[in-house]
Amino acid sequence: MFLQKTPYKGARDFYPEDKRIQDYIFSIWRQVASSYGYEEYDAPIIEPLELYTAKTSEEIVDQQTYVFEDRGGRKVTLRPEMTPTVSRMVAARRQELAYPLRLFSIPNLWRYERPQKGRMREHWQLNVDLFGVDNIAGDHEIIQLADQIMQKFGAQRDMYTIRLNSRELINHITKNILGLDEAKSQEVIRQIDKKDKIDAFGFDKSIKELIGDKTDKLLGLLGCPEITNLPDELKDLPAVKRLHKLEMMLARDEIVNAKFDITLMRGFDYYTDIVFEIYDNNPDNNRSLFGGGRYDGLVGKFGVEPLPTAGFGMGDVTTKEFLDCHGLMPQLDTRVDLGVILIGDVYQQASSIIKELRNGGLSVAVDATDKSIDKKIKSADKSGYKNVLFIGEQEIAEQKYKLKDLKTSQEDLLTIEKILGKIKFKDN
Amino acid sequence: MFLQKTPYKGARDFYPEDKRIQDYIFSIWRQVASSYGYEEYDAPIIEPLELYTAKTSEEIVDQQTYVFEDRGGRKVTLRPEMTPTVSRMVAARRQELAYPLRLFSIPNLWRYERPQKGRMREHWQLNVDLFGVDNIAGDHEIIQLADQIMQKFGAQRDMYTIRLNSRELINHITKNILGLDEAKSQEVIRQIDKKDKIDAFGFDKSIKELIGDKTDKLLGLLGCPEITNLPDELKDLPAVKRLHKLEMMLARDEIVNAKFDITLMRGFDYYTDIVFEIYDNNPDNNRSLFGGGRYDGLVGKFGVEPLPTAGFGMGDVTTKEFLDCHGLMPQLDTRVDLGVILIGDVYQQASSIIKELRNGGLSVAVDATDKSIDKKIKSADKSGYKNVLFIGEQEIAEQKYKLKDLKTSQEDLLTIEKILGKIKFKDN
Repeated sequence: MFLQKTPYKGARDFYPEDKRIQDYIFSIWRQVASSYGYEEYDAPIIEPLELYTAKTSEEIVDQQTYVFEDRGGRKVTLRPEMTPTVSRMVAARRQELAYPLRLFSIPNLWRYERPQKGRMREHWQLNVDLFGVDNIAGDHEIIQLADQIMQKFGAQRDMYTIRLNSRELINHITKNILGLDEAKSQEVIRQIDKKDKIDAFGFDKSIKELIGDKTDKLLGLLGCPEITNLPDELKDLPAVKRLHKLEMMLARDEIVNAKFDITLMRGFDYYTDIVFEIYDNNPDNNRSLFGGGRYDGLVGKFGVEPLPTAGFGMGDVTTKEFLDCHGLMPQLDTRVDLGVILIGDVYQQASSIIKELRNGGLSVAVDATDKSIDKKIKSADKSGYKNVLFIGEQEIAEQKYKLKDLKTSQEDLLTIEKILGKIKFKDN
Repeated sequence: MFLQKTPYKGARDFYPEDKRIQDYIFSIWRQVASSYGYEEYDAPIIEPLELYTAKTSEEIVDQQTYVFEDRGGRKVTLRPEMTPTVSRMVAARRQELAYPLRLFSIPNLWRYERPQKGRMREHWQLNVDLFGVDNIAGDHEIIQLADQIMQKFGAQRDMYTIRLNSRELINHITKNILGLDEAKSQEVIRQIDKKDKIDAFGFDKSIKELIGDKTDKLLGLLGCPEITNLPDELKDLPAVKRLHKLEMMLARDEIVNAKFDITLMRGFDYYTDIVFEIYDNNPDNNRSLFGGGRYDGLVGKFGVEPLPTAGFGMGDVTTKEFLDCHGLMPQLDTRVDLGVILIGDVYQQASSIIKELRNGGLSVAVDATDKSIDKKIKSADKSGYKNVLFIGEQEIAEQKYKLKDLKTSQEDLLTIEKILGKIKFKDN
């Protein structure tokens, strides 16, 4: 019986060409997060199950977590999201840390679900969180940063929409305007969250089943396209004023694709005020890409003084699909600069020459197998190396080496110094 | 009941100051592996249990793996090592890939064991593997690369020893010289592998229990300090000739701390010929740091044509302890260049100035809270920012901003251009 060669279902192997794509995505994430002063953290992929039972959405914990008992009898989980973990870490040093505290991470997360387009059982997710800013500047920074990532990926403003809403506004509507209790409110919110996945008739019907004669009132409010269309009783709410201010700040940044959307809920129960979502406008990929919002209550659950927090999570799978779908993924070739082909038994004599090339900053792959020169050239080409360098006894004696460009087949006889200059110049 | 703030037992939270240390280690690993033409890959942390039962050491699979059943009834493992995974990936594309194939990865690995110095339940490990080179140049490259990593970390030659041995030689001794069967050979090898952990008397006794009157013969051979001290019947073995050639190649590279050590076994059962180990010479940390060797049989276990392979794995925990212990860990400060302190309600007006600083390549953290200026300065200092920049209405009007060095307390009134020049210059 031979062993299976496939990766675990719903998860991915990353061969070098796949890893380069992931690295490209990670590098833009790191670059933008760092430019805003965020610093990277990390944590174990295993967390106790309790960490999620109180805060994540029920569906995720009950049906989608990887839960198991370790050999010591602890009930543990492969983290399905990072927000509870970073809240735990901040709570553990609540007093020692300086605020505003800016943290980001790129963890891998696990969810047991049916693998489908844009959804894998394992994915990586940029998590950006700002702790200790209770005013609208905090929400603004998080959304501006998310937008800046889209811009750095080369996205045009018409390729995506930034949807904005306020959980406080929604809670006010369900509780004070419609007079629903907490449980009913949650059900209504969950139903609105699923709105895009069901047809309009089915949606209206499901709302009617939940709240009966209050349906028209709710549907009327959900139909408001702009903040200015809201009834006056809502317009005066502090939450709505904050949201309106945020809209104007983003407009001033020329983020013209940011729009109020009263139907935006975001899945997690822990959001407390402003929420946002980046939505792909491409007809072939019309879907939510990622989002986040304010969750002021989470750090306090660890028994420390609560801390205002805003953040978002952005996944690698959806990001890649967005880039592919809009033709924004760059060509990412191998980073190996040079394949060295040894002629004859010169491995030891060539050693100092190769060292010089590496010290000069080149990535050099030596073929010291016993294959023929021809086969070695073919293999270098198959590996994607653009250049090969031939080193034999004669070359070593004359201190000049044949450099061959495998794309153009051009050959030059050059000193090491010239080779370093030529290849480094090409790289830039 | 409040939630626990501690990370899972035996695993680590990485706050920014810890993550910077890990990043420093990873960056040296990546830099050296890349300079040798190795390309990065990755794979899911979950693998089927079968992947390990055949190849990893029994102790690890039976007592130390994280095993569980997923919701679909599959028996899976959090990978305890990466070698079976990379072998699986190469086997899956055995025909399409070009050789020599150079792959590296920095996965996190899980082992259920009692946490102790240098051993955690979760650790990260550089894995470097060279596929398709069946001659000694392959072994040499892997060991030279491992040595180069030590050198890049600033290690001196007297700080560590590179121990070399040959599994083929050991197998020849146990099977042909001592006439032991496969099972007995394995037991003897495991006992020699534990030699450093027990006293000499206990070791001799345990060997005697295993092989009786053949003990003196074995102990005599294990006492040979150099290849040249081996009896002639062994010196003529191809395996010993290869090992001797390797020793001379490393000596030519001025890797004078590489030494033959006939007692070196390496834990895993899959090694087939040359094995090596980097050993810390510091009396306070006298232990094996990491190692590897040739394992030609693994790729073939997946039902494809076998492939000669040599590689090693180097852990982050032991690397950090080595660097700490030898005073080689550099000071790693925050990468945030500038804390911006807003004076009054100028968040929106300051926006374009901050954008200019970020576009200029600086990492800029803005304090837009409602705290007093004094508290903001204290917080910036606590965050480790070396400089703060004050932006208020007057500054915006005059287009000159006060830059304060928090270490020296020096203050300068500068234009954005001057600030960019000054801070970038400082960085270099």
